[in-house]
Amino acid sequence: MTRTTKLGMAGLGTVGSAVVNVLQRNASLIDARAGQRIALTHIGARRDNPQCDTSKLHVSRDVFAPADDPDVDVLLELIGGTELAKELVLRGIANGKHIVTANKALIAEHGNEIFAAAREQAVQVCFEAAVAGGIPIIKTLREGLSANRVEWLAGIINGTGNFILTEMESGGRDFNDVLREAQQKGYAEADPTFDVEGIDAAHKLAILASIAFGMPLQFDKTFTEGISALDLQDIAFAKELGYRIKHLGIARNTAQGVELRVHPTLIPDSRLIANVDGVMNAVLIKGDAVGATLHYGAGAGGEATASAVIADVIDVARVIDGETKHHVPALSVVDQALEALQVLPIEEVTTAFYLRLTVLDEPGVLSTISKHFSDAGISIEAVIQKQPAPGENTVPLILLTDLTTQRTLRSALDQVQSLPQTTAPVVSLRVENLGA
Amino acid sequence: MTRTTKLGMAGLGTVGSAVVNVLQRNASLIDARAGQRIALTHIGARRDNPQCDTSKLHVSRDVFAPADDPDVDVLLELIGGTELAKELVLRGIANGKHIVTANKALIAEHGNEIFAAAREQAVQVCFEAAVAGGIPIIKTLREGLSANRVEWLAGIINGTGNFILTEMESGGRDFNDVLREAQQKGYAEADPTFDVEGIDAAHKLAILASIAFGMPLQFDKTFTEGISALDLQDIAFAKELGYRIKHLGIARNTAQGVELRVHPTLIPDSRLIANVDGVMNAVLIKGDAVGATLHYGAGAGGEATASAVIADVIDVARVIDGETKHHVPALSVVDQALEALQVLPIEEVTTAFYLRLTVLDEPGVLSTISKHFSDAGISIEAVIQKQPAPGENTVPLILLTDLTTQRTLRSALDQVQSLPQTTAPVVSLRVENLGA
Repeated sequence: MTRTTKLGMAGLGTVGSAVVNVLQRNASLIDARAGQRIALTHIGARRDNPQCDTSKLHVSRDVFAPADDPDVDVLLELIGGTELAKELVLRGIANGKHIVTANKALIAEHGNEIFAAAREQAVQVCFEAAVAGGIPIIKTLREGLSANRVEWLAGIINGTGNFILTEMESGGRDFNDVLREAQQKGYAEADPTFDVEGIDAAHKLAILASIAFGMPLQFDKTFTEGISALDLQDIAFAKELGYRIKHLGIARNTAQGVELRVHPTLIPDSRLIANVDGVMNAVLIKGDAVGATLHYGAGAGGEATASAVIADVIDVARVIDGETKHHVPALSVVDQALEALQVLPIEEVTTAFYLRLTVLDEPGVLSTISKHFSDAGISIEAVIQKQPAPGENTVPLILLTDLTTQRTLRSALDQVQSLPQTTAPVVSLRVENLGA
Repeated sequence: MTRTTKLGMAGLGTVGSAVVNVLQRNASLIDARAGQRIALTHIGARRDNPQCDTSKLHVSRDVFAPADDPDVDVLLELIGGTELAKELVLRGIANGKHIVTANKALIAEHGNEIFAAAREQAVQVCFEAAVAGGIPIIKTLREGLSANRVEWLAGIINGTGNFILTEMESGGRDFNDVLREAQQKGYAEADPTFDVEGIDAAHKLAILASIAFGMPLQFDKTFTEGISALDLQDIAFAKELGYRIKHLGIARNTAQGVELRVHPTLIPDSRLIANVDGVMNAVLIKGDAVGATLHYGAGAGGEATASAVIADVIDVARVIDGETKHHVPALSVVDQALEALQVLPIEEVTTAFYLRLTVLDEPGVLSTISKHFSDAGISIEAVIQKQPAPGENTVPLILLTDLTTQRTLRSALDQVQSLPQTTAPVVSLRVENLGA
């Protein structure tokens, strides 16, 4: 075991310090698996982090220093953000370094450009930690299921959002109340927009979909609907119908185009993925040969993310000790085989829908409304109609539709919305069966 | 894309024909992922299989022919069994061919010898399909979680057994009744011993444990207890206590030694793995950095197994187009780093226990029995005591113990068993919390 692969690391926050700790704690094990020494030789960080011991390491105050260090084989980009991180990664690539990053935004938004630069320099760019933290989902999709045509995948890929939904459901507490708790516990940022509006999930979904279907990254085409407007009563009605609501990222390869969408989704409560709670992540993948597989674990946290970062390092170390030309392609297929698949507009996506109407408590309302749906060709699979609360003259009317496009649904909903019996905006949520 | 990796395949049963079908159906996708042509060029099979089209392939009636074909790069061993399969694989290795096998018994029982032969010839031996069918669990453990010290793993790794347990529980039907149905559906063999007595699971567990802990295969040291003696009433009492019974393979690396055991196990019903039903498989892995991850999917079936076989083929093809010396080591660490870890005798394994005593319905029985356990230093965590059925003078007494070794428990049980109030053999089952 003579060779040493030398790592340079930019950034020493939660993930960076965890990488230092895991590399130190499991050093002999990691070397035995890599078949060589894995040595962190240079850290670029603006300040020290008391969470780890860097006293024996070369630390520069310039985060770019490891990217320029001729001694570094692999550059770990752990600074986060997009602009500076992109500059750093491109600099490292230009200097002939392999890249390992945990940065989902960077890969989702600039991956195509970064991969092209890496191709020029014949270096690898690895990003297992960018999706679902410690779950080796990119390896699973890209290598473990490489015999399969992936039909669809669906993931709970934002722990903050899943924590909030779990607490809303179990505690009967509203969104803002739970969000405050999540912020206190450190599960949610001061500005929670990225998590609760689904942007973070869309970054991850764009990456998974490109690998699953062998297409360039198309983050900007991803439809995103958050959970901040989700009403507690819809969680309760969903439960009554045998569903739980999860914030899912869904990618599906159809003959009409690729579906790429993040939105609150009703899932039958008998599915394992419907029972993934708290900050945990899970990704369900449907392949034509393997059927459905589910991969579950911690989607965030320093050490879980470090687990993925270091697994990438070991993969890279193995390859650079041999020939680099046949490493695993970044987006699962060799570059010349990438297909420019079209993303299907959300209006054309077919799903079932959960609808909550607020209607006057009058005879004939249900039949009037049903007729509008049946005229549009939309079947109703289930109905919940409640007695009005004392003193109320409106009632919630819950409908579960059969499969339809959003376009078809919208035209029916426009008519139903304009009926005199409909007294409030209709709430609609998508339903996914996720059957294998 | 000029290079072609040529496959020879021995065996054309359920898995072999599925490999042919998936290779044909997904040929362009597989080639795009491998970065080269993957071509099945020679099949050795005693007879044709109408499940696939081999009309354009070279088929020999001698199953050994592909192992001797100088044109073959990778030999797929899909004949099953151990003796002939071992001879075939060693022949292939001697002829310089890389090996892909789906044969758990072969690897568990003869893996150490096969890996040694492969090392001599500098070829790879891949066996993703040998454990948990289409779930890429070996890749996950060996590569995806390579930064982790694996603390323990627990798996539902025999679909037949899990189908039987699921049906016993959901239908309130006894073991033999469900076994007959499983045999009719083709989920169980005419001789079901391998599945229901846990031998098949022990094969898979031995493989997973060696990879998890970096030690040579020790199948013969694996403790095995089957499900054929499992009583319906224990499933019901477990449920009352908040548990489900699953036939788990468990491996744990402790300071005292490695636990390797397959037995019916009570698991808290809130755990995802407790809700894995029917023929599905799942493996839960606890790593020191990543925490717990769960990997779920079809553990058997032709195409699911073919998915794993072909993933291995793609991995091998990538490596043989570069340098072979730094491929992923078969048992996760390079050979010189394998540790000869000792397997802990089952008497020394610490778990909680579920006990069902049959006792006379007399005052003071519970306190008499409790005293024997407390004298042995065993705490009782929960008790269920039922009224006797009409006309019966005995009652079941259910105890859930705190953690103890089997040795300690057995000495207490010997005393309790010999009490005049104890009228039938005590039933004991292990309990695992599986908390992360």
